[in-house]
Amino acid sequence: MQRYFVEQAYQTAVDQGLSLIGEDYHHAVNVMRMKETDQCYLVFQDEVAIKAEVTRILPETVELKEVAREEQTKELPIHVTIACGYPKGDKLDLVVQKGTELGAHDFIGFPSQTSVVKWDGKKLAKRQDRLSKIAKEAAEQSHRQVQPTVTMFEQAAPFYESFSGYDQILVAYEEAAKAGEKARLVQTIQEMSQGQTLLVLIGPEGGFSMKEVSFFETLGAKICGLGPRILRAETAPLYLLSAISYQYDLLEV
Amino acid sequence: MQRYFVEQAYQTAVDQGLSLIGEDYHHAVNVMRMKETDQCYLVFQDEVAIKAEVTRILPETVELKEVAREEQTKELPIHVTIACGYPKGDKLDLVVQKGTELGAHDFIGFPSQTSVVKWDGKKLAKRQDRLSKIAKEAAEQSHRQVQPTVTMFEQAAPFYESFSGYDQILVAYEEAAKAGEKARLVQTIQEMSQGQTLLVLIGPEGGFSMKEVSFFETLGAKICGLGPRILRAETAPLYLLSAISYQYDLLEV
Repeated sequence: MQRYFVEQAYQTAVDQGLSLIGEDYHHAVNVMRMKETDQCYLVFQDEVAIKAEVTRILPETVELKEVAREEQTKELPIHVTIACGYPKGDKLDLVVQKGTELGAHDFIGFPSQTSVVKWDGKKLAKRQDRLSKIAKEAAEQSHRQVQPTVTMFEQAAPFYESFSGYDQILVAYEEAAKAGEKARLVQTIQEMSQGQTLLVLIGPEGGFSMKEVSFFETLGAKICGLGPRILRAETAPLYLLSAISYQYDLLEV
Repeated sequence: MQRYFVEQAYQTAVDQGLSLIGEDYHHAVNVMRMKETDQCYLVFQDEVAIKAEVTRILPETVELKEVAREEQTKELPIHVTIACGYPKGDKLDLVVQKGTELGAHDFIGFPSQTSVVKWDGKKLAKRQDRLSKIAKEAAEQSHRQVQPTVTMFEQAAPFYESFSGYDQILVAYEEAAKAGEKARLVQTIQEMSQGQTLLVLIGPEGGFSMKEVSFFETLGAKICGLGPRILRAETAPLYLLSAISYQYDLLEV
């Protein structure tokens, strides 16, 4: 069943009358060809999700009424932010699409010291919009109750300043994997509790420099390996998110 | 360090003299510009991997000598075969590339009842070659000790006949995830032991039909959910392989 993210908190939306407008209106009426009594999911900014039924279709508004709350939780118990040193090409598209399906809470792009590509402010804003749209569509398709945010930093410094706001920080480092580091990811995610925040740092092609990793450590990051195989820049976040889901959604039940 | 898959068993290669020929010769000499005393990894058909050093470069052969065995194992303890009902477009490219990085032992494509695309024999052979090449390149980059095979079935029946050769069979089924099935994947992979084989069945876009899933069950397949979020056809195998790696490579150490 189709799912729409409404840019309001649940109670505000209820007070104003449940509706779809703008692009969601177009999608519901012209793409899905929804009619009265058809149902869809509405997901609100405060992570409340409901099943709703179309009551009336007006020229610019679909009106709906609530049928039931969505009971099953679709979100990971911890909030995972995937931060990628800008890789080449459109690899972030894949990270954001698949990472959203796999439960990431937020995405960040930043210029790591080893990033080859440089993004200026104007291009970055455009890119951020495009990635946000990919996240929204993936969140709808994968039945998420949160629409992940996407933030693209032009400078690294303001991103580093945000590190202190996270409960845990992991940096995926190829050299750690080669040296056989196995315990850190397991330890970290097993120790975290409901509602805590985890920042995961992923290097661009070729990984972070040793100097950059040491700097991240001074900011509280822990180095972790992701198994004995060398994963590409865009594969590492998918491994991490799958492992976290396996731990929380399947093992700890 | 560059890694080459040699189409011989280790002892045969040693007896005949270690060498790179054909495409690998071209890659080593013209792409990597390797010279005498440069080193690379050689991986043999029987999963032996060694570090080797170039001793001489001839017009069509790079000659090498063994420096050391590669001690760290890069392979999952169980052999995972990812079998996808033919999805649309080039999604299998992504599954084979990322799935190889994540440790799959073999890939299979087959016409599931819900597959929209149809492949005839000639196109299939071409596609199989292309995917095998993707697997080879990904295996080299990710430091695998096995080059995954790719088999594309034109008819489903001969594929079904192969089911009895696997120790365990899992079918990823969206309806199971919706119903909250959580235990099967964990149970299955925790019960398996070194060298056993696992076949994983993944549907095309929209998943398998209920009838097809029931049929797989009569052939010994167990239905499993992959967490509460709905994963696309090409994301499900990556989740599974990451979960299996997390279980074997990081948890059980």
